[in-house]
Amino acid sequence: MRIALLGGTGDIGEGLALRWAYHTDHEVVVGSRDPEKARAKAEEYETELDSRGVEEKVTGFENAMAADRADVVVLAVPAYHVVDVVEEIGDRIDEDTTLVTPAVGMQKGAGGFRYNPPDAGSVTALVAEAAPEGVPVVGAFHNLAADRLANLDVELSLDTLVVGDDDDAKRNVADLAAGIEGLRALDAGPLANAAEVESLTPLLVNLAIHNDGMHDVGVRFE
Amino acid sequence: MRIALLGGTGDIGEGLALRWAYHTDHEVVVGSRDPEKARAKAEEYETELDSRGVEEKVTGFENAMAADRADVVVLAVPAYHVVDVVEEIGDRIDEDTTLVTPAVGMQKGAGGFRYNPPDAGSVTALVAEAAPEGVPVVGAFHNLAADRLANLDVELSLDTLVVGDDDDAKRNVADLAAGIEGLRALDAGPLANAAEVESLTPLLVNLAIHNDGMHDVGVRFE
Repeated sequence: MRIALLGGTGDIGEGLALRWAYHTDHEVVVGSRDPEKARAKAEEYETELDSRGVEEKVTGFENAMAADRADVVVLAVPAYHVVDVVEEIGDRIDEDTTLVTPAVGMQKGAGGFRYNPPDAGSVTALVAEAAPEGVPVVGAFHNLAADRLANLDVELSLDTLVVGDDDDAKRNVADLAAGIEGLRALDAGPLANAAEVESLTPLLVNLAIHNDGMHDVGVRFE
Repeated sequence: MRIALLGGTGDIGEGLALRWAYHTDHEVVVGSRDPEKARAKAEEYETELDSRGVEEKVTGFENAMAADRADVVVLAVPAYHVVDVVEEIGDRIDEDTTLVTPAVGMQKGAGGFRYNPPDAGSVTALVAEAAPEGVPVVGAFHNLAADRLANLDVELSLDTLVVGDDDDAKRNVADLAAGIEGLRALDAGPLANAAEVESLTPLLVNLAIHNDGMHDVGVRFE
């Protein structure tokens, strides 16, 4: 499959790009608003992968170009940019493209971060509203430990939660997730359940703030 | 310590009562609105503990009597009863009593449960508003796998999150939690972070609904 990681120059985008390129046969395309930045990041990832014997798996393009002909487009951008990016790529995606949103709205307050959903109820719902008719939207990859994800020397033992209304698209994203060694995808139900999934991200940040020795916190359900 | 478990006749109350009686030296008092029911449950727990060589650790009383002279009072009652119970015991507790709230407001919808906080922002905040002046309030024990907790044959490997504004009270509750083998307490920060902690409960229920082989779901942060 061809996976576009828009905002693939950030933390979570970097980790997913490296892991998919390293653990799977998928083609990874890094997208950015700035094509130079996308190309530079793709080269940086290629260098890292090359040192591990993996070659020519990652390319970099401007967002719309990166989304073009992708099977899955991951919107690895901040929550407040997500609608702009969906509009930017709108004419390049159709019902055969799955849009994946890992973004979470958070607000910093005294003693921690709080979940701050958009009026739509969740970022996943916001993306579903902004997406072109018929394009399936899946929320996933919100709650990964980004530093561990981006370090290929680290063996993962993490869960990610997949939420959305299109069961085929959800299964597809769950399979993509499970292609990464040590990552397990769990089904959190329909899109209406997305807020509870997204709320987990500020909680993980708060645990890192308040517990000695915890940082880059991930989660396992058992 | 003397621990009162009000609503100690329900799922989570039963598990905490049995575990504290079994794993620690604390005195456990089961409370209920109905003193007969409290006594019957206490006897049931005693029988279970007796078969494991633990004797005379659990008694049962009407709520206000149970709370009287307790060091820690756990409000193991449904979210919509919590204020009534605090009022019921108000004249038996003071600044030397820590009130612990494990309750979560949830609403069932299509495909799952959603977090449904009271106007106060969280059940923990609601209890803090209802509590007598100076009584410290701690949110904890929301996200335990209740069936496993109540089965002393099961070795636990679970995290619980502790949230509140009084650091001494929080430490005290974290120590109580850690007294149960296999249970780890993590600090989720001040009371203002309680909504993200409580939101985890509907998420755990949704994972049990949507994933084959998952039920009685607990969580580990790592």
